[in-house]
Amino acid sequence: MKTDPDCVFCKIVAREIPAAELLEDDDAFAFLDIGPLTPGHTLLIPREHYTTVDEMPGDLLARVTQHLPLLVQAVQAATGCDGVNILQNNHRIAGQLVPHVHIHIIPRRPGDAWTFNWPASEYAEGEMGKMADRIYRELERRC
Amino acid sequence: MKTDPDCVFCKIVAREIPAAELLEDDDAFAFLDIGPLTPGHTLLIPREHYTTVDEMPGDLLARVTQHLPLLVQAVQAATGCDGVNILQNNHRIAGQLVPHVHIHIIPRRPGDAWTFNWPASEYAEGEMGKMADRIYRELERRC
Repeated sequence: MKTDPDCVFCKIVAREIPAAELLEDDDAFAFLDIGPLTPGHTLLIPREHYTTVDEMPGDLLARVTQHLPLLVQAVQAATGCDGVNILQNNHRIAGQLVPHVHIHIIPRRPGDAWTFNWPASEYAEGEMGKMADRIYRELERRC
Repeated sequence: MKTDPDCVFCKIVAREIPAAELLEDDDAFAFLDIGPLTPGHTLLIPREHYTTVDEMPGDLLARVTQHLPLLVQAVQAATGCDGVNILQNNHRIAGQLVPHVHIHIIPRRPGDAWTFNWPASEYAEGEMGKMADRIYRELERRC
């Protein structure tokens, strides 16, 4: 299993750094974020060190994310929140701060501190089909 | 398989409404968001109708999310983006607009239109442990 001796999440998995642990199995580990956006903000990570989600084997990501429904149920019940965002950031441009794949489970309540905008746009005529073709070709190349 | 006759994503899966399709199998379906936050904004959904992620069987969510690494690779290659956010919103308070579980894959570039803040806070002395205990008890009740 790949680990990075300088990675804070690898150290948490190895219990070299303490954390408020919630769940673990052979592939996954969950604990409270020590800098929560809202109370109960939870992190679910693969034990193994991967920097970004595109580097992970799909079946390993699946074995990690299978825990999300139960974790979200438990976070909702424990916090009494009204909804939950699940967020996973890849690369600094996307807000990733720790270079070990981590899935944020963020409980939401009216007036809480976390906000994002939703600047939905539109494709110019014909551009959506071209974009889909480009992505489809990249998928085909990888299958 | 549960479907909702009024659900726009169920209609896309049934091909009653056209979409720029990218990927499908027995459990999952991916297509371009018609109101993209950034070009190449992709949605990955379960074929079956579930309103929120906590309602989904974990193994079904796993069979949907197993496609994320490949989809993210393809979106990155096709758009030339510098990073990707994966976002899944549950309930209106969390920004969910369509009540059928959907996972946003959002390509990111410097200066793009999507923004979120990161108001990391701290737990008061002893409160992190209490929160972890509450979530852990809710997990235990469900196992």
